[in-house]
Amino acid sequence: MNIKDIIENKKRGNELTKEEIEFFVNGYTKGEITDYQASALIMAICLNGMVIREISDLTMAMAYSGEVLDLSDIAPNIVDKHSTGGVGDKITLILMPIIASIGVPVAKMSGRGLGITGGTVDKLQSIPGYVTDIDIKEFKQNVKEIGISLISQSMDLAPADKKIYALRDATACVDSIPLIASSIMSKKIASGAKNIILDVTCGKGAFMETKKDARVLSKLMKYIGKNSDRNVMCILTNMNEPVGYSVGNSLEVVEAVKALKGDMSEDVKEIILTFGSYMLKMAGLGDNIEENKARIMKEIESGKAYDKFVEVVKKQGGDISYIENLDKFEKAPYIMPVLSPKAGYVADLSAELVGRASVELGAGRQRKEDEIDPRVGIIVCKKTGDKVEKEEAIAYVHANSPEKAEEAVLKVKNAYTIVDKKVKKPSVILEIL
Amino acid sequence: MNIKDIIENKKRGNELTKEEIEFFVNGYTKGEITDYQASALIMAICLNGMVIREISDLTMAMAYSGEVLDLSDIAPNIVDKHSTGGVGDKITLILMPIIASIGVPVAKMSGRGLGITGGTVDKLQSIPGYVTDIDIKEFKQNVKEIGISLISQSMDLAPADKKIYALRDATACVDSIPLIASSIMSKKIASGAKNIILDVTCGKGAFMETKKDARVLSKLMKYIGKNSDRNVMCILTNMNEPVGYSVGNSLEVVEAVKALKGDMSEDVKEIILTFGSYMLKMAGLGDNIEENKARIMKEIESGKAYDKFVEVVKKQGGDISYIENLDKFEKAPYIMPVLSPKAGYVADLSAELVGRASVELGAGRQRKEDEIDPRVGIIVCKKTGDKVEKEEAIAYVHANSPEKAEEAVLKVKNAYTIVDKKVKKPSVILEIL
Repeated sequence: MNIKDIIENKKRGNELTKEEIEFFVNGYTKGEITDYQASALIMAICLNGMVIREISDLTMAMAYSGEVLDLSDIAPNIVDKHSTGGVGDKITLILMPIIASIGVPVAKMSGRGLGITGGTVDKLQSIPGYVTDIDIKEFKQNVKEIGISLISQSMDLAPADKKIYALRDATACVDSIPLIASSIMSKKIASGAKNIILDVTCGKGAFMETKKDARVLSKLMKYIGKNSDRNVMCILTNMNEPVGYSVGNSLEVVEAVKALKGDMSEDVKEIILTFGSYMLKMAGLGDNIEENKARIMKEIESGKAYDKFVEVVKKQGGDISYIENLDKFEKAPYIMPVLSPKAGYVADLSAELVGRASVELGAGRQRKEDEIDPRVGIIVCKKTGDKVEKEEAIAYVHANSPEKAEEAVLKVKNAYTIVDKKVKKPSVILEIL
Repeated sequence: MNIKDIIENKKRGNELTKEEIEFFVNGYTKGEITDYQASALIMAICLNGMVIREISDLTMAMAYSGEVLDLSDIAPNIVDKHSTGGVGDKITLILMPIIASIGVPVAKMSGRGLGITGGTVDKLQSIPGYVTDIDIKEFKQNVKEIGISLISQSMDLAPADKKIYALRDATACVDSIPLIASSIMSKKIASGAKNIILDVTCGKGAFMETKKDARVLSKLMKYIGKNSDRNVMCILTNMNEPVGYSVGNSLEVVEAVKALKGDMSEDVKEIILTFGSYMLKMAGLGDNIEENKARIMKEIESGKAYDKFVEVVKKQGGDISYIENLDKFEKAPYIMPVLSPKAGYVADLSAELVGRASVELGAGRQRKEDEIDPRVGIIVCKKTGDKVEKEEAIAYVHANSPEKAEEAVLKVKNAYTIVDKKVKKPSVILEIL
């Protein structure tokens, strides 16, 4: 077997065998196959696609290219949650303490942000003292003791995926459904959870622009899950506009803490209740979704969910005085309002444009090695369907220089489409698969 | 402009602009664009193709990636001849001395063989003493003095093509018509000739398997020529069976010398007369093809063509006693006949299988760095259409070990298809474009 023949096969649109896929993944991980041969194959996969059997084989080869975590000694019913990426997506920060508080063990490893997609680890690190890179032993110990740990993926899980993803990023091959599905699932399989709930974001701010693509991706991931003895659920959510009202690291922590205290926007509430209820069901804590939703509301109202968040922050070295007094978070030095150019209704608020503006403010990374500023970002006050007055502040920009503030104000203004006629609020949960 | 956007464009099947193509070619030649990004783009070109305008821009960018030779100080009517590659193709060795003898200046740079395609430089080097890597000054001086020089391409002509070809070879991207056309034409443009005649080989032993593909390639190269102010002619020739009767380096020199003395097989004669006549026409030495053919035959019969070959060998340091006495060429130690398994007619003689057998004997290279043995090769006595008797020697294998000889005998036997019914001799010249 040799890599040239494998490239030739995929170039001709043939199916690759399991052995060919393993030969590629293992050879590339070990450095025996060159980057330029791997990128030729990746481009051929991008353009000629893969059948589901090949995608499943690719996923397993990548999952087993490094260590595969075993969490069965903590609990059999661990539920992992993953989002395909969004703008202002702070759902993990809110949802995980809630379900941990109810009794579902949470052992969650998250990533850093890249491009317009924020990362949970960056958000957690905006809490002074919070340590995200603890070792697996301490991680498991924390889950045993307090039922939850939220860390960064510091282990070398699915190293093949890491290498292949970097190559895809450099060669314009990110937007391939077979490669997205295998990348997500290989990491989830390697990280050990038996139950996986996936937030498949859908819209202009997401990998999947259309519901049709999101549905294809979801079905693929469910199929891969079935093949690897994992219980996988997918929920399609709207990512045409940002999630909640803040985009930026400490700004999103503040929003998350308020949400845990019961103060949340309608879209965040709907996502939290839907995902939370299905996660309780997956963990075997109740099949009735409506009852589960009520249970989640009760957990928030009683203050227990918030308490669990404080507990995990404390356990991982975070300074809880910031959580207890949100005003302690350092504010960006330049805060400027974005004024509505006319009276009317918000017809569209582009997650992509808001995301890009936030990256340029320093809230996200263009490249992996970029530093981020935890203070900066955007607060949107008006979302799709909202009524606005002329000259009303529809958003605020939090910047670390007046120039960046001004640029971002223009960009955020462009992200809004305001019309005369009333506009219906968009659905947040699009489909449950 | 950045390479990721260019890859993305071609991945989506868009046309690349001239600026984008130049950005890629120059950046890659200078090493500013990585191999893995280049290979992703090359694969996208392979799969999504290019329009002729893009191919033309790619050719010119590659041609001008290094020095472009100026031969106008030697003569304005230089005609260059190039073959897209074949098995047993010794046409350059015979044709160029003939036309030089008639008065068309020949300044020809050739390549080495790779795979089943032989290289004129390897053949010339089987003449003891012949120096193929002389500098450009001496090259031009030789052309001025004796009207001909045959050397290797030692100059850094079209360095982008060299880099891109190596990448295509490693990533199964050789068989792409836009890339083949631009590769051939960039080298021809950089090597300075104003008139270019291309032997577009066609069949199982060639890049182009079908006449349809060969025609597309030819039209493309003519278009590129027109765009770059070059006069380009293409002649499609049959490459289902080897050219002439020998495959192997000194074996082919012997055949070429005999041909120059008038002893040539029917297919070689047809190719020599057709190409030669059109080359005389291109050089302005006569528009009547039939008259040109007669002139060529006269040049051979008078011994002048042979004398010109002796003159160029002598000029470049070769020992002419080998040419004058062909028995001086060292013979391979093991010469074994291939016997016909039955009586009948040769219906097919696979150039590809004969070519592969000759590479394994050591007459060609699997990889660039492989050494070749000038003595070894294959002599085919019977070709398509010929009548054979049972147990008659249809070919001879020249090997440097008994094991290799035996293997080659089996392979060459398999290259023959012998049937009971009479078979028509195939055409050699398929089309003139």
